[in-house]
Amino acid sequence: MSHEFDYIAWIRRKAAPHARLAVGIGDDAGMVTFPPPGNCLVTVDLLMEGVDFLMPPATPQQIGRKALAVNLSDIAAMAGRPVACVTSVALPRRGGMELGRGLFDGIQALADEYGVALAGGDTNTWNGPLVISITLLGEPTGTGPVRRNGARPGDWIMATGAFGGSLAGRHFSFPPRIAEALALHQSATLHAMIDVSDGLAADLAHILEESSVGGILEAERIPISEAARGAMDGRTPLEHALGDGEDFELLFTASAEEGARLLADPPFATPLSRIGEIVAGRDCRLRRPDGNMEALPRSGWTHDFESPDRIP
Amino acid sequence: MSHEFDYIAWIRRKAAPHARLAVGIGDDAGMVTFPPPGNCLVTVDLLMEGVDFLMPPATPQQIGRKALAVNLSDIAAMAGRPVACVTSVALPRRGGMELGRGLFDGIQALADEYGVALAGGDTNTWNGPLVISITLLGEPTGTGPVRRNGARPGDWIMATGAFGGSLAGRHFSFPPRIAEALALHQSATLHAMIDVSDGLAADLAHILEESSVGGILEAERIPISEAARGAMDGRTPLEHALGDGEDFELLFTASAEEGARLLADPPFATPLSRIGEIVAGRDCRLRRPDGNMEALPRSGWTHDFESPDRIP
Repeated sequence: MSHEFDYIAWIRRKAAPHARLAVGIGDDAGMVTFPPPGNCLVTVDLLMEGVDFLMPPATPQQIGRKALAVNLSDIAAMAGRPVACVTSVALPRRGGMELGRGLFDGIQALADEYGVALAGGDTNTWNGPLVISITLLGEPTGTGPVRRNGARPGDWIMATGAFGGSLAGRHFSFPPRIAEALALHQSATLHAMIDVSDGLAADLAHILEESSVGGILEAERIPISEAARGAMDGRTPLEHALGDGEDFELLFTASAEEGARLLADPPFATPLSRIGEIVAGRDCRLRRPDGNMEALPRSGWTHDFESPDRIP
Repeated sequence: MSHEFDYIAWIRRKAAPHARLAVGIGDDAGMVTFPPPGNCLVTVDLLMEGVDFLMPPATPQQIGRKALAVNLSDIAAMAGRPVACVTSVALPRRGGMELGRGLFDGIQALADEYGVALAGGDTNTWNGPLVISITLLGEPTGTGPVRRNGARPGDWIMATGAFGGSLAGRHFSFPPRIAEALALHQSATLHAMIDVSDGLAADLAHILEESSVGGILEAERIPISEAARGAMDGRTPLEHALGDGEDFELLFTASAEEGARLLADPPFATPLSRIGEIVAGRDCRLRRPDGNMEALPRSGWTHDFESPDRIP
C-alpha cells in the first residue's frame, strides 16, 4: 500500500463508531453532537519533526500519542471533557505508510483511553519532515470552563504532579490531567487554570497577565521531578522545574479556604501542592527559603523566531 | 517583533469578537456555541510549501486565504454554514513574523467575508518550510448535512461552475460555494454532494464508491474553464477538466425531477450544469458525443506516496 486513499481506507476500517459522532471519517466533514447548552471547546497543537521530537528515537506511536495528549492537556486546563478530534499530517515519503499507521495507532490508543471520537483528518505526503496537527473538541461541565483570567490576590497557587526534566522521556508518556481537572472543578471553586507546557514560570506568567495580578512562587514548595533532580547539566533542579516545560501538569489558583480544603482532602491520588500565592501588582517573583525575593523570568521555552530548533 | 508571544498578542488585538465565540484567542482552548440540536461539522486541511504552493510567487495573504477557503469548500459540500476556525502553523524562521502576519491577514479577510469566528491556534517556528493547517467548525441546516453516500440510479449528476486549469491561479482566489450549497439544499432534495478538490473524475468516484452506484459523465456537457481551454501542454481541455482538481466546485446528485427543476430556475447566478447520470453497477464511465463509452480513470491528483511534490 503506497497510496493515500489506501491509508484512509485502512483508517476507516480501524476507526470505531462513537455515540457523539453522527458522521465519521470519510465524508467532506465529520459531524459531532453537542447536547444543550452546546458549548464546544476547541484547541489545536502542531508538532514538528526536529523540533518537538526526533525520529528515531521517538516511535511513530509515541508521536501520535503525544500529538493527542498535548491537546487533552489543554482541554483539562479548561476543566473540560474531551469529545472528538481531527488530525492533519504531512508525512515524509520515506516510509510514509508505515509511519502513518504508527501515528494512527498511537492516537487511537489514547483516544480510546479518554473516550475521544476520531472525526476525520487530512493526509498529505511530501519530501519534508513529519508535521502532525491535531484539533481536539471538548465540552465544559455544567459549571463552565475555567479560564486563565480569574486569579485574585490572596489565592493560593497550586499544581498537580512534579516539574522539570520532562524532555528526558515523560513528554511522550505523561497522563493528561483530565480526571484531575474535573475532580478539582467539582470539589472546589477554581479561579484560574492552565496546563504547564511552556514552563512553570512562563505559564504562571500567562495566568498573571490574563488576570492582571502578581504572583509569588515559594522555591521550597515547588515539587521537583526525579528527572530534574538527576539532571547533570549544570542547571539546578529548581531551574529545571521552573523552566523546562512540557510537564503538562495543572497549574491553578483558588481561594485560601478552597485550597486548604483541597489539600486536606485531595479528590485524587495524583500529588497536589500549594506552591505560592497571588498578590496585587503585576510582578512574578520567587521567594527563596531564606525569605529573599527575586524576579522570576519567563524562563520557559520561549519560541523565539530566531532561536535554533530545540531537539529533545 | 521576533517572538511568538508578540505575534499572538498582535493576533489578539486584530481578532474581533463574534456572537458564537464564548471564549476567544488566548486561553487554553476557545469555546464556540452550537445551539440545539448542537450538530458541529468539523473539517481540516493542511497546506505545505513546495506542494500546495511556492512562495514566491504566492503571497502569504493568498496562502492564508486558501488555507481557509479549502475548508469552507468542505463545509459547503455538506450544505453547512461555517462558524469558527482554529489555525496551526509551522513558520519558517526566515521572516517568520512578516509571514505570520500576512497569513493571518489572508485568513481574517476571508473569515470576515464568511462570518467565521477565529477561535484560536498554535504558532510554531522551525527551520523547515511553511506548513499551515486550519480546522473549520460549521453546522448543518435544519434539514441536515448532505453526505456522499446517497446517490441513486437515475439521479442526475450536476455541478456548479467550470472545471480545469485551477492551478493557473484560481486555486488561490476561488469563491467557496457556501451560498450556492445552502440555496441548492433549500431548493431541492440533494442525494449526495462533494466539493471537487482531487479532480472531477476522482471526486465523482468518491460519491459512487460511498453510494455503491455507477456513473456516466457526458463529455460534451462538462463545463470547461477558460484556463483549461487555453492550456498548451498537450492535454485536451476535457482532460484538464476531468483531472486537474482544486476546482472547489460543488458536484452533487438529485433526482431527474429535482435536477430539471433546478436547471429551469437556478437559485443563484453561478453556472449550474447537468453533466451526467447515476446508474446501477459500480463503473465510472465517460460518454463521448458519438455515443462511445470509455472507463473514466480516477485521473485526479492521486496523492501517491512515491510521486514527486506537485508544485503549481
